[in-house]
Formats: sequence, structure tokens, C-alpha cells
Amino acid sequence: MTPTSDPTPAFRPAAPADHGGAGNGGPDAVVLDVHGDVAGLTAAIMDIESVSGNERALADAVEGALRALPHLSVVRNGDSIVARTELGRAERIILAGHLDTVPLPTTEGARGTVPSSWVGEVLYGRGATDMKGGVAVQLAIAATLPEPTKDITFIFYDHEEVAAAKSGLGRLVRENRELLDADFGILLEPTNGTVEGGCNGTIRFEATTRGLAAHSARAWMGENAIHAAAPILTRLAVYEPATVTVDGLDYRESLNAVKIHGGTAGNVIPDGCVVEINYRYAPDKSPAQAEAHVRSLLDGFDLVRTDSSAGARPGLNAPAAASFVAAVGREPLPKYGWTDVARLSEMGIPAVNFGPGDALLAHSDDEHVTAAAIRECLAALTRWLS
Amino acid sequence: MTPTSDPTPAFRPAAPADHGGAGNGGPDAVVLDVHGDVAGLTAAIMDIESVSGNERALADAVEGALRALPHLSVVRNGDSIVARTELGRAERIILAGHLDTVPLPTTEGARGTVPSSWVGEVLYGRGATDMKGGVAVQLAIAATLPEPTKDITFIFYDHEEVAAAKSGLGRLVRENRELLDADFGILLEPTNGTVEGGCNGTIRFEATTRGLAAHSARAWMGENAIHAAAPILTRLAVYEPATVTVDGLDYRESLNAVKIHGGTAGNVIPDGCVVEINYRYAPDKSPAQAEAHVRSLLDGFDLVRTDSSAGARPGLNAPAAASFVAAVGREPLPKYGWTDVARLSEMGIPAVNFGPGDALLAHSDDEHVTAAAIRECLAALTRWLS
Repeated sequence: MTPTSDPTPAFRPAAPADHGGAGNGGPDAVVLDVHGDVAGLTAAIMDIESVSGNERALADAVEGALRALPHLSVVRNGDSIVARTELGRAERIILAGHLDTVPLPTTEGARGTVPSSWVGEVLYGRGATDMKGGVAVQLAIAATLPEPTKDITFIFYDHEEVAAAKSGLGRLVRENRELLDADFGILLEPTNGTVEGGCNGTIRFEATTRGLAAHSARAWMGENAIHAAAPILTRLAVYEPATVTVDGLDYRESLNAVKIHGGTAGNVIPDGCVVEINYRYAPDKSPAQAEAHVRSLLDGFDLVRTDSSAGARPGLNAPAAASFVAAVGREPLPKYGWTDVARLSEMGIPAVNFGPGDALLAHSDDEHVTAAAIRECLAALTRWLS
Repeated sequence: MTPTSDPTPAFRPAAPADHGGAGNGGPDAVVLDVHGDVAGLTAAIMDIESVSGNERALADAVEGALRALPHLSVVRNGDSIVARTELGRAERIILAGHLDTVPLPTTEGARGTVPSSWVGEVLYGRGATDMKGGVAVQLAIAATLPEPTKDITFIFYDHEEVAAAKSGLGRLVRENRELLDADFGILLEPTNGTVEGGCNGTIRFEATTRGLAAHSARAWMGENAIHAAAPILTRLAVYEPATVTVDGLDYRESLNAVKIHGGTAGNVIPDGCVVEINYRYAPDKSPAQAEAHVRSLLDGFDLVRTDSSAGARPGLNAPAAASFVAAVGREPLPKYGWTDVARLSEMGIPAVNFGPGDALLAHSDDEHVTAAAIRECLAALTRWLS
């Protein structure tokens, strides 16, 4: 609807004629110009559709670009790629990002789709914020800093936007653990250019109450399982969630009933009611401690744990983290949503989120990012690593 | 599975050869022997499948039997039939029953099906309790009491077991109101041979709470609609339902959440929750009074009425009722479930339930009735009307 213009004429996505001879990235890989403007590179990456499960073409292009850089050693596993500098530096850091996106919007006229489009200096399209800008910054660092002050392990991985069991990063941890050692990690998820440390943990339960069915005309013959759930809802409603300071950042917790269902018919006393509960807890607690907390609060009720992901401490005490925060020059914030920094944290690698774009736009029909945000992210990392 | 025997050799269902010349009941009507044993007559009626919507064959047979009795004036409307004595008695009473049944059982080996079967003196089959025994008693009274002490209006009607809008009795009230005047009514629904007076009213509401959706990782950006429903459940859980004495019978009330649902996903703060509420109230209250009571209890919540059926006073103060209760010789009880006595009550006709069989077996896979119960019901009515 709005005319689009491309403010980065220095870069255009590779034309179809460029396919076919792209280094070691596969015979049909698109050639990405990783030495040009990082915002234009972002658009080129976005134009290679990469909804979860369909990352191959983008992984081929990324692999091709990395193998063309002689200072990197490159390993591919499925549609994930690890590329490392081997400079013998005192510190090694990880720069990680996922290649996949959520599905394309189905709403007519949505701009958060494929291919991307420019409106002035704003880049619209699927992945604009989550997280093609971050991937472009990774590739630009790889291309433009052959001798960084810290050794760098670049990780590009598949299947982040789907069930955790499919995660390409999880697969690398299982199968290529030896490539992943590092002192500090940065996940280039969108944080509006601020360092967001760690993440809250999340745990889910089903609280089930049981009753005895009876015709509602003779209710005293039964026991009402929905009425029995009243104290569960009351305890959740009056619960005052804590804010916990971890490594200098304030993590705001929450405890909520997210779903409820009970009863079978309008004339039957319900014999069952299930309340689904989600506790988001600060990373000072282990999953076991979080579980004990909820069980204590809902003591006397039948609770079954249905899901659990540990949080991650922000790790801002690590020396590499401190120098990074200084290079970014903004006050770090806590991250609330669960991200893959938790996987790095589990491996003993302190990690933070730092990337261009607004996380609240992720997955939206209107996904977009400014060219400036991508360039500033690259500039901050370049400052820190030069 | 159990060998069956027929204790009533005096009666057998009409053979197919009997079809075709049955009075005015239609050219193919089965001939019912309404002068034989009433338990055998019940079995013969049960053998004519009459699931709601398929009452025609049975209505034809009943109409044929009634038109063969010269002391009755007979009117048919759809698959409902009204037959009246016109003796100029001081009092007129109604004997009413529905011709239809709920669908046949789908469980293999279920005995509450068609055709019926005898196990000793117990008659199994669809309609055994609800309410072919009552229909057989109506026909037996019609056949054997040409000069009852009160004028009698016999009503046989279709579509009782389905949505109220389809009710054959409702249609008769709308289209043949002039045939239905009476001082007292008896509905031959199963009551184990005890007079059960009136019925509770029933009214349903949906109570809806609203919130604001947000990602559960940032719960403070939203408002939890399920938590907002906690006071609704608490008020219902602590509510102490009344027992109200009406015309000498104690009506036990109840107020229940019968269904609840809320929430859309495990990581979203729910923006809506709906509690379905059913109030069963004593017949001292009008539907409007019942509604006001629930609205007062749940003051401050968004309540939408979704269903309402008035109760019926037992009407045991009516002179005909008193003599009837005396003839039955048992202490009358309140009826809790809603029955068509409420329709008679709405017309200003005091009415009670009185019939053979246990209401708790109605609609079951194991529906059955004893021959003695049917015969005793007939005997009590015959005593009263002779």
C-alpha cells in the first residue's frame, strides 16, 4: 500500500543467476554480501524464507558466506553452523542467533512477511525483529573483524521457534559440545539495543479438583468440583508476586492461572475441574525450588507439573560481561521471556541478550526494525571486540 | 443373556397380521389389547419403537384403541391424542403421559432397548420406566372405567424427551386449549408409586469475567480474568441452599457452577472466563424472583440468563388432590426434576406426578419396571376413580 524505497543501494539480494557456485554452502546457495551495509544484509537474509523446518536455503547461504572467510573454522550440523576464530585469545565469547522464523502472517496486507520491504529507513518483513537483524550483525562481525580482541564462536541454529526438543542449539550441545566452550555468550535476540540479562524460569502445573457427578436437580447427591477449585483461584488472585534482585538486576515474577475448564453439561454437577497454572520465577531459584514454592502455596491440592524450563542468571559479574556492558553504554535490564541464554547458562556460560529491534513486535503481522538499530548493534559489538 | 419368560400369557403383542384394519388409528396401526393385563400391555407398547420424532406408529395404535371405546371423544393433533369422557361430573381430572422415549442404548448387551424382554416379573426395555407403564395405565383406565366418578381427560403426547419447543403438550396447549380444562392433573411419570408434587424451577446464567491478554512472562501488562472469577466460585461454594416448604412439601434447592472455561494458551494471561450457573429453586418463587436472588448473590458480576423454566406448586391443597393422595395411601413427596406438571401448573391446573417405576432408571441402559408396580398404579387410580 505504501510505496517502498531502498535506502541501501549498495546492497541488493543476490539475483537467481548468482545461485549455483556459492563456495561450500551448497550448489544452490544464495550469495550474501557480508561486507556491505548490515541493514541491507538483513533484508537479503529476510528474503530467504526460513520458517521453522525450512531453514536449509538460509543455512546454505550462511555457511557459504562463512566458508569464504579464511580466518574461521566452520562446522555444519543439520541446518546449524558453528564458525570459530582460533587466535589463542585469553577470552572466548559466543555470538548466537537462530535462523528460523515463525510462520508468515495470514492477514491480507500484513507487512511482516516475505519478501521484506523498506518504508523509508524502516525494514518490514517476517524476521525483521526476531531475529534477522541479529543474524546479519553476526555475519558482519565475522566478515569485518578477522582479528577480534577475543576469540569468537559464531552459532547459527535452526528450530528455535518450535518445541524445545527440536532446537538446533540443543542438538549442538548434545553433539558438538566441544565447539561451544566460552567465557561469555551474547544471544542477538531483540532487546532494543540494551543488554538484557538472564531470564526468568517458567514452570507449569495442572491443579485438578475432583467431585461426584449428579443431576443438578439433586445436587446434594453429588460434589461440585468447580466449587472445590475456588480456593485455588483465591490463593492465586491474592498472591503478591515477588521482585528478586539477581546479580544487580530486578526480576519481576508472576504466578497465574492461565486456563481453566470443568463440567460436562448444564444439568450435571461437575465431577472434575482443571486449573492450568504458570509460575515465572526469578533466576535465583532452581526449577525444584520454584516447584516447591507453588506446591507450598497450593498445599492440599492435586498438582501435576506439566512443563519446566530453568531460568538463567544474568551473569553480569563475569569480566567479559562487565566490559561488554561498558561498551554498549546503557543500563542493563532483566529479560523476562525465556530465551536460549538459559541453555548457555546451563552449560556454565554466563550469557545475555543483546540485539536490534523491539521484542514486542516479534511474531506480529507488523514486524519491523530500523536500519539504525541494526547498525548501532553492529557498532557496539565492533567497539567491544576491536 | 438371561433366559426370558413372559409371566402374562393372557397378553401377547398383536402379530403383524393384525395390522391394517385397526379402527381409526390408521391403516397400519398395531392393535393394542387394552382390556388385558396392564403389564403385558406395557410390553406391547414398548415393542413399538417410539424414540422422539418417531412416535407415529405408537400414536396410531393408541388412537385406534381409544376410538374403539365409545364413551370417549377423541381428537388427534399430530402425534398427540386427547380423549375425554363427557359425563357431566362435578370434577374433571387429567391423566397425561408422553409417548416418546430417549434413543435406544448403544451399549452392546444393554437390556433397556426394543423389543422389551421379561426376566421373571421384571420388564426390561426402552421406556420401561419412562414412561410406557404410565401410558399403559392410562389406556387401561380408559378401557375399564367407562363411568369414572370424575370426568377424565386422557392426554398422550409426543416429543417430551427433546427441546421444550417441540413438545406435543405445548402444541396442544397452544392449539387445543379448550380440550384441556381440568380441576387437577396427574402426570404418569415414574415416581415409584408415590405421589410426587410439583417441581422445582430451574434457571441458568453465564457469569463472565473479562481481563486483558498479555504474555504470561509479563503478566503485569495484563489482567487475569480467571483470577477475577474467584469470588464467583467462592460465593457459590459457601452458599447454603434453602429448603422451602410449599403446600406441605419440602423443596430442597441448589445453586451450582455446572461449567467453567477460561484462557487460551499456557503462556497468555486469560482475558475471559465464563462460569455457567444453574439454580434449582422451590416453586414458591417465580422465575423473576429466582433471577433476582442469583443476581443479588453475584452482585457486581456480568450475568446473562441463558435458560429458565418455572417450577410448579404441588397443588395438594386442591380437593381432588387430597382425595387422590388418600386413595394412594402413601406420604406424598416433592418432585425435584422438572416435569410437564409445570405446564399444567402454568395453565392454573394443580398437578402431581404419579407413576410406576424408579425415575433414577429412566434413560439408563438397564431401564426396567416390575409388573407389580404397573398393576399397583392402575389399582390406586381405579380405587380413586370408581
